[in-house]
This record gives sequence, structure tokens and C-alpha cells, in this order.
Amino acid sequence: MKQPLILVTNDDGISAPGIRNLIRIMNDFGDVVVVAPDAPQSGMGHAITIEATLRCDKVIIDDGPQKEYSCSGTPVDCVKLAVNKLLDRKPTLCVSGINHGSNSSINVIYSGTMSAAVEGSLEGIPSIGFSLLDYAHNADFSEAEIYIRKVTKSVLKNGMDRGVCLNVNFPKTISSKPIKGIKVCRQANANWEEEFEERIDPKGRTYYWLTGKFVNYDKGTDTDEWALANHFVSVVPVQFDVTAYPAISSLNKMLSDE
Amino acid sequence: MKQPLILVTNDDGISAPGIRNLIRIMNDFGDVVVVAPDAPQSGMGHAITIEATLRCDKVIIDDGPQKEYSCSGTPVDCVKLAVNKLLDRKPTLCVSGINHGSNSSINVIYSGTMSAAVEGSLEGIPSIGFSLLDYAHNADFSEAEIYIRKVTKSVLKNGMDRGVCLNVNFPKTISSKPIKGIKVCRQANANWEEEFEERIDPKGRTYYWLTGKFVNYDKGTDTDEWALANHFVSVVPVQFDVTAYPAISSLNKMLSDE
Repeated sequence: MKQPLILVTNDDGISAPGIRNLIRIMNDFGDVVVVAPDAPQSGMGHAITIEATLRCDKVIIDDGPQKEYSCSGTPVDCVKLAVNKLLDRKPTLCVSGINHGSNSSINVIYSGTMSAAVEGSLEGIPSIGFSLLDYAHNADFSEAEIYIRKVTKSVLKNGMDRGVCLNVNFPKTISSKPIKGIKVCRQANANWEEEFEERIDPKGRTYYWLTGKFVNYDKGTDTDEWALANHFVSVVPVQFDVTAYPAISSLNKMLSDE
Repeated sequence: MKQPLILVTNDDGISAPGIRNLIRIMNDFGDVVVVAPDAPQSGMGHAITIEATLRCDKVIIDDGPQKEYSCSGTPVDCVKLAVNKLLDRKPTLCVSGINHGSNSSINVIYSGTMSAAVEGSLEGIPSIGFSLLDYAHNADFSEAEIYIRKVTKSVLKNGMDRGVCLNVNFPKTISSKPIKGIKVCRQANANWEEEFEERIDPKGRTYYWLTGKFVNYDKGTDTDEWALANHFVSVVPVQFDVTAYPAISSLNKMLSDE
């Protein structure tokens, strides 16, 4: 019997410590093929490259058994290229990450890491995005690893509902506050309150930097934000059907009244 | 009483005929401020500019009463900049488009046009994305205009459920087949079957072009694809909460069993 084929990608770029850790872990579960961006692609959401050409070249980064491709495109491009061009069979599993930084709550829609997982689920592949709430390059992924192994083993055994992928976030590793376990959650109702810092360039023209702070409006104890603040791993099932079903009947009334 | 403040954006770029038509229409409904990309941003999904600076400059493109800003960023950047920096009050309405080409079904998650509308709804602004199923630069927007006026009037009067925006698509204008009316729909279960065309550049290196065809797997008559194929305007309410609620209980069982 063939081993599971595992596609690995991310949005921090192919040389980020997060994906190097994820590749090392996935090598214990099956045949690993990495197709990941050649440079950081954070905040790229579900962007795809349609007006420009894509590069995708075989690379060797370490001495692990995985095959690796470095791609000029977005995380979603990487999944599309892997599935439709590079791989000779459909992956058993698609994993994305480990992201350096949170993809909980509303971050899910801006995240290249999570968009790659969503794209995997669109292709009918059980898919998981992993993120650690630590932006540091030298973040400690050791505690997350225990839960990555647990979730991966479970998804390989049980599969996943069609049209659903998982958004898995880990609290930052703090030795005095070990992770308490896993909570399956909903996406918290939170958002970024943004500011744009205005500056003047050396030629006298204005430019802007996006800055902002994350604000959680949600008091629920069933959210990913609650789980993470209370030292649990958050697991949110994510779907690509964005229809707001409860709004259909009121809209029908509203638009027929005019 | 102040007039409604209407924010207009798109993903085809500020000079595209689609947005020029939308601006002209919106000038009849209130004070219009345009903040739109300085170049095409199709397929950018919910991408934001976080690692680079943004340019946003006042421009005059025609002799209409609107104020206009041309921005170097994505459609979502345009909405964030407008709301958090450029406007002195919160817009009454955010409209995006008129996109040259469909944003029905799964296209919603790749679409810069629709991501701008989703971002508007995240900011608490009633928001609508408009798209015409015609990629031509000189597409005929005249039939769409009737329904843009109708939907805009209704949303200005009734507002919109919090966390919901509208994805409005128009069939291509065909004089022998007039639009039959509006259908409120769900997002069809359809997807792109992609292929990558492999080519060799003048230096002998491989590159790829993304191509593909759209395939509708959905036999339902309550979908946007059905409505459009049957010459109705499709209106899908879209939400930014992507939690797959029905999957929560099975996931709880699955992850606690391991």
C-alpha cells in the first residue's frame, strides 16, 4: 500500500522555521511534497496569479526525504500548481504553516496560510492550517508539535467533511503555562481597528503604513479567542461557502417590496 | 440633513468603464468618494498590503462631482484607507465594481471586488459588490444600471444585516433576452478545473500560465449560477464568519476519541 501523500505549504516562505518544522513532522506521516512561496506572502488572502506568469523550481533545502518546489506565486497558487501540475496523484492531506503569528478569528480571511488550506478543501483534499501565536523567527514550536501530530493522525484516520478545512492555532509557548488541551471553536467576532501612519518620502510625496490593533468584541467562551487566551489549542472548522443563509428570506422580502 | 456618503471601489482599476459607470450612477444617490486601485487587481482576494508602503493620491478623471483617490494597494487596502484615513465620516454605503466578469459562486473568494465589499461589511458599512458577466472593456452596462439603482435604493432605505454584504451579478446583456428580474440565491457549488500551461522562456527556464474552466456541480435551482443562466440578476448575501458550524460536533467527537 502506498504511503499517504502530504502536500505542505505556507505563507511565510519556504525557508521559514515554521514550515521547516512542519515538513520534519510530516515526514513521519507519509511522502511529503512541499510547494511553497519563494518569499513571504503574509496577508495575501485568497489571491491568485492570473495576469502574470508563475515560476516553480525544484529545490533542495535540507537533507530530509521530502521533495520541494519553490514558487513565485501566492499560497493558493502553490496548492493549485501542486494539485494540477506537479503531483502525479491527489494528496491525502494538505497542511499549511506553521504560521509565525495568529490566524484566529477574522485573521482567517486575510491569511495566506489559511487560504491555502481552504484551496486544498476546494480541491477535495482534507486540509489543515497551523499557526502559532508567536511572530518571532526563532519561535518555540515544540509544544505545538505534540498537537500537530495528534490532529494530523486523527484527520488521516477519519478524513474530513467535504467543503471543510481546519484552522488550528496554538498559544505562544510559555513554560510556566502549558497547553491545557484542544477546544473546537467558532471564529470569534473580532476585528482590526486600523490606523494608517502617514509619512513623506525623500521626494516630498505622501505614503502610508498600515498599523492597527486587534479588538475582540466577542464575550463568548466558545470562540477561538477565548480558547487561546485560556491556553487551549483552538480548532475552527472553516468552509468556503460564504452564503449568509439566515439573510435570504429578509432579502427576498426587501427586494420584492421595492 | 447630510446626503448619504457613498464609498466606491473596484478591482479592475480606477479607469475601468465598470467603475466609471458605477460612479456616475452613485452620484444620483449621494456624496461619492472613490478610492480605487491605480491598476488592475483582479484575483487579489482579501489580500492586504502589510510589508510594503501604500500610495494614495487625489486624482481628477472626469468632470463629475465625486472626489477620487487612486491607490497603489489592493481593493481591501482601498476600503481600509478610505474608512480609517481619508473620510471624515463613516460611509452610508460601500459599493464595489461594476466588475468586468462574473463573481458568482466560488469566484467570490478570489474576487477583489467582493473582498472590498466584505471589508466594508467588516467595518459595519452596508456593502454591495456588482459584477457583469462580460469581460469586454466595452461591455454594455445599461441593463445592469436599472437593477443597480433598484438594489442601491433598497439598501439605502432598509440597511443591511450586520456582518452581511451582497454579491450582485448580472447576466451578459443580450438584446433578445432581457433580464427577467432579481433572484436572491445561495452560492452554487462550483469550482475551477485548472490547468497550468508550461512554457520555456528565452533563457531556457520553465514558467507557467494558469488556465482553467469553470465547472458547476450544483443542480439546485436556488443558486446564483442557475439564476444567471436563466437571465435573472443573482443576489447572494455573503458573510465573513466562515465557521462551518455543522462540523463542530463531529470534530469534537473525533478529536476527543484520539
